[in-house]
Amino acid sequence: MTKSFLLTAAALLAATHLLVAQSSKVFDNLSVPSRILKSDRKFAIYLPPNYESSQRTYPVLYLLHGAGDDQTGWVQFGEVQQIADKAFSEGTATPMIIVMPDANTGTRGYANDARNEWRYEDFFFQELMPYVEKTYRIKTEKRFRAIAGLSMGGGGSFTYALHHPELFSSACPLSAATGPMTVEDTKTALKRAKPDVTYTDAEIEAYFKRQSVLELIKNVPDDQKKAVRWYIDCGDDDFLFEGNSLVHIAMRKKEIPHEFRIHDGGHTWTYWRKALPTVLSFVSDAFHQY
Amino acid sequence: MTKSFLLTAAALLAATHLLVAQSSKVFDNLSVPSRILKSDRKFAIYLPPNYESSQRTYPVLYLLHGAGDDQTGWVQFGEVQQIADKAFSEGTATPMIIVMPDANTGTRGYANDARNEWRYEDFFFQELMPYVEKTYRIKTEKRFRAIAGLSMGGGGSFTYALHHPELFSSACPLSAATGPMTVEDTKTALKRAKPDVTYTDAEIEAYFKRQSVLELIKNVPDDQKKAVRWYIDCGDDDFLFEGNSLVHIAMRKKEIPHEFRIHDGGHTWTYWRKALPTVLSFVSDAFHQY
Amino acid sequence: MTKSFLLTAAALLAATHLLVAQSSKVFDNLSVPSRILKSDRKFAIYLPPNYESSQRTYPVLYLLHGAGDDQTGWVQFGEVQQIADKAFSEGTATPMIIVMPDANTGTRGYANDARNEWRYEDFFFQELMPYVEKTYRIKTEKRFRAIAGLSMGGGGSFTYALHHPELFSSACPLSAATGPMTVEDTKTALKRAKPDVTYTDAEIEAYFKRQSVLELIKNVPDDQKKAVRWYIDCGDDDFLFEGNSLVHIAMRKKEIPHEFRIHDGGHTWTYWRKALPTVLSFVSDAFHQY
Amino acid sequence: MTKSFLLTAAALLAATHLLVAQSSKVFDNLSVPSRILKSDRKFAIYLPPNYESSQRTYPVLYLLHGAGDDQTGWVQFGEVQQIADKAFSEGTATPMIIVMPDANTGTRGYANDARNEWRYEDFFFQELMPYVEKTYRIKTEKRFRAIAGLSMGGGGSFTYALHHPELFSSACPLSAATGPMTVEDTKTALKRAKPDVTYTDAEIEAYFKRQSVLELIKNVPDDQKKAVRWYIDCGDDDFLFEGNSLVHIAMRKKEIPHEFRIHDGGHTWTYWRKALPTVLSFVSDAFHQY
Repeated sequence: MTKSFLLTAAALLAATHLLVAQSSKVFDNLSVPSRILKSDRKFAIYLPPNYESSQRTYPVLYLLHGAGDDQTGWVQFGEVQQIADKAFSEGTATPMIIVMPDANTGTRGYANDARNEWRYEDFFFQELMPYVEKTYRIKTEKRFRAIAGLSMGGGGSFTYALHHPELFSSACPLSAATGPMTVEDTKTALKRAKPDVTYTDAEIEAYFKRQSVLELIKNVPDDQKKAVRWYIDCGDDDFLFEGNSLVHIAMRKKEIPHEFRIHDGGHTWTYWRKALPTVLSFVSDAFHQY
Repeated sequence: MTKSFLLTAAALLAATHLLVAQSSKVFDNLSVPSRILKSDRKFAIYLPPNYESSQRTYPVLYLLHGAGDDQTGWVQFGEVQQIADKAFSEGTATPMIIVMPDANTGTRGYANDARNEWRYEDFFFQELMPYVEKTYRIKTEKRFRAIAGLSMGGGGSFTYALHHPELFSSACPLSAATGPMTVEDTKTALKRAKPDVTYTDAEIEAYFKRQSVLELIKNVPDDQKKAVRWYIDCGDDDFLFEGNSLVHIAMRKKEIPHEFRIHDGGHTWTYWRKALPTVLSFVSDAFHQY
Repeated sequence: MTKSFLLTAAALLAATHLLVAQSSKVFDNLSVPSRILKSDRKFAIYLPPNYESSQRTYPVLYLLHGAGDDQTGWVQFGEVQQIADKAFSEGTATPMIIVMPDANTGTRGYANDARNEWRYEDFFFQELMPYVEKTYRIKTEKRFRAIAGLSMGGGGSFTYALHHPELFSSACPLSAATGPMTVEDTKTALKRAKPDVTYTDAEIEAYFKRQSVLELIKNVPDDQKKAVRWYIDCGDDDFLFEGNSLVHIAMRKKEIPHEFRIHDGGHTWTYWRKALPTVLSFVSDAFHQY
Repeated sequence: MTKSFLLTAAALLAATHLLVAQSSKVFDNLSVPSRILKSDRKFAIYLPPNYESSQRTYPVLYLLHGAGDDQTGWVQFGEVQQIADKAFSEGTATPMIIVMPDANTGTRGYANDARNEWRYEDFFFQELMPYVEKTYRIKTEKRFRAIAGLSMGGGGSFTYALHHPELFSSACPLSAATGPMTVEDTKTALKRAKPDVTYTDAEIEAYFKRQSVLELIKNVPDDQKKAVRWYIDCGDDDFLFEGNSLVHIAMRKKEIPHEFRIHDGGHTWTYWRKALPTVLSFVSDAFHQY
């Protein structure tokens, strides 16, 4: 009887072996306390299959939403869970943790504002990033950290990776807002956003230098040209066609290696859902070690 | 050694049990207490894969059964679990919660009756909907709510979405009963249903205005023509061919955008099982955001 | 040497055996002399693969173009050759000859006009049909003759098969013009087409009775209800939605068996190219013998 | 008996020869006499499957090679026959005749030169086009004529379709040379090409106006903005990135509808072979009629 019980156990084990697989998890309403922003800030997170049953560490992708949306955008509209699950199970990307912060702040997205009164970018680097990388089993070397985003979040991907090439191995701005093209543009945009605030010329100039992707590219030092792997994608019907095309030209002329794509489509979630598998695969190339 | 091996086997079995990938869940015999209907009303619910392991919110589809059936119809005959699981895993639809209320009331389906004595529609909007949207992690904006149903439930889909265009982003009546075509029809139908009740002309008229899909379409205000996305489908062998064809004509003439399909088939579950994947995909277009 | 030559010949034969396959042929600029129309009338023809190498006879499909087009329409825009080749090689339809007459006559399509001065329909039955069925190896029994067409040619398919149920085993009107709904409509339409011609009431009435599909259906004798197999298809965005929907209702009420389809789409070649394989398969069912 | 068997074999061989399914044909060394260029000019042609066995007419695509190449380029490097055969048999494009003229003239490609001494463009429109459209069964309405090409031939596609929007329904410049950006550029380029020739300012200005794609786009009249359907494609590693990106920006700002793509790749035949199926499908959309 012992023997037959053992055999039964072995048979069961063999059977259950096929079942050992834990699904990925998504939380779309988590919070991190922020002293810098004087409030709790929301974020969503995707934990890859088997996260809880394992004890390994993972690379991380920060995935930024667009204007008018919040941390749930990539979950609901972007189908991040279905797409990431598929990419990981098919092996086109490596399992990673995906962090989606909420920048639905009522002010200008992912940037510190022109007067440094609302310092979202500081919050991101000094509070959010340390918090999630400590709370979850995230690898913290540059090689294992990537950033991507759409529209306003594409702008955030550009500026964060250009401000901190030492922190991201790759960056994937999709249909990106590329910021002001000139100081004059900056002035106009700031005026339009907050008509009753007066900025000094120094503030405007500083904001331009921080937020204009073309200006940031112009100032990339020679030894930093290959610091970040770039994947830039913007549909041919997108209203942001000009900035993205000019960034492509500027990066080509400056000899900053980058992938650039213009596919058929506009400023839509259909476009971004289609782009996401390539983004996951692209950032995995650095995580994977070529 | 035998013992320790057995223990190991048991431990492994216990462990693997926890690791089983989380499938979708169906409950087909839940209840919601109703003061309006003075009884508990049954409903079935489909919770998508990973519902319990995640902490995100989901869109919702209310899926209505036909006459002579109950809340178990879409589960047993409609294969809602197998079809939804497949659609979500293949990415042709976005994960959603599907609520299937029981309208097997012995009286006329999803409507308040002509004397407002049996107020099923009021129950639906004032009790069922609030209850499930509070009990489960359901997104409560219009964009994330859809309605579909077959036959009598197709009629319910029509009337609910036409009565409450502010609550549904899309509606999919399948093989729908489209209600009385004239006041005279209404009188006859009410008589046939309850021979011993006498209705006032005002009651008949009011019931006609509430339950005739053609009449409701006639009265859609101009600024509400695009309030709901419509997918209407009825087989060429269906006995309800006339009402559905006339609704198509009426909506075309009124310039209410709608998808209309006539495929090969009759008033059968084979037809509706074949239609369901398209319904899930259609309602997802609004949930997904273009 | 004789032997080796024989062997070589045999080898060549074996090799060429694999190559014995003759492609289909299309002629898009043929003519048939017409005494009735006092001119030569163009037609196009599709001859199935192996037509010339064989000595067998074939069924025939008359395939009618729409208003503003000519006998080349189904060849160039309809891809009849590619689609028929594919259907025959895959076995979803049986090889047939397809005849595409030119009705680009500057007057009203496939009908005899209201005064019987331009008698296209007579030309079709008395001249074109006998000519092609004698010139090509076409089977001449009703069972092996079908008619299909789009728009104005869908109208032609309706009227020809309703006028001559003894000649066609099946008819497939696509996005069909279904003719005038009333005598009054007929009057208006004739006036609009030729403002300077005055018709007698008898002429208008007669034309209505010949050209109104709804009227023709009303008058189908009981013993003729199953004389023709019908496949009727019209997109939900087609401007001819009303006539086709009413024809469906009328045929259902009259109990004339028919397949009816409403797919997604408008009055476009994209729709008709998509419909053609089903048409070929449907008419083959009669040719094939069920 | 041996003899008779041999004769039978020979007869069978002869017969089967006639029966071989008719494949497409390519001729890569044909000539057309040119009075304008005072010489015979070479061209290659692709005739679709069944061309000779049928008697129908076909649409035409003019397919232009790049600098340093000749009329055999698209045949040898571009695999036009294999790619077109596949597209037609799969139905992703409609059978067409493809004409590939030789512009390997030792002078600047497809243009009339700055002094109108070498008038290749005049040859194309006044001699080559009439010759092939008369010699082969080519439909001669604008709807059925398209132009495409790579690099220098992409430039030709741009300028020909912008000079003659009344002749082409679609144009597909691939990795196109977009010509001089300014009059000054024109001067420099002409100088570089022929150091010993002195051009008048008027000649330079005229050449600029004829050959600068950006200038031609600037001057497209409002009622001509939709005259030609455009498909423009240039790899992100192509050295011609700037001109193509600026053309995209200019066409967007001018509101000239166009498809624009940037895929992964450089100025290579690998890129163009990959692009060709899409080109065939794109030009077919006009040939096919929506």
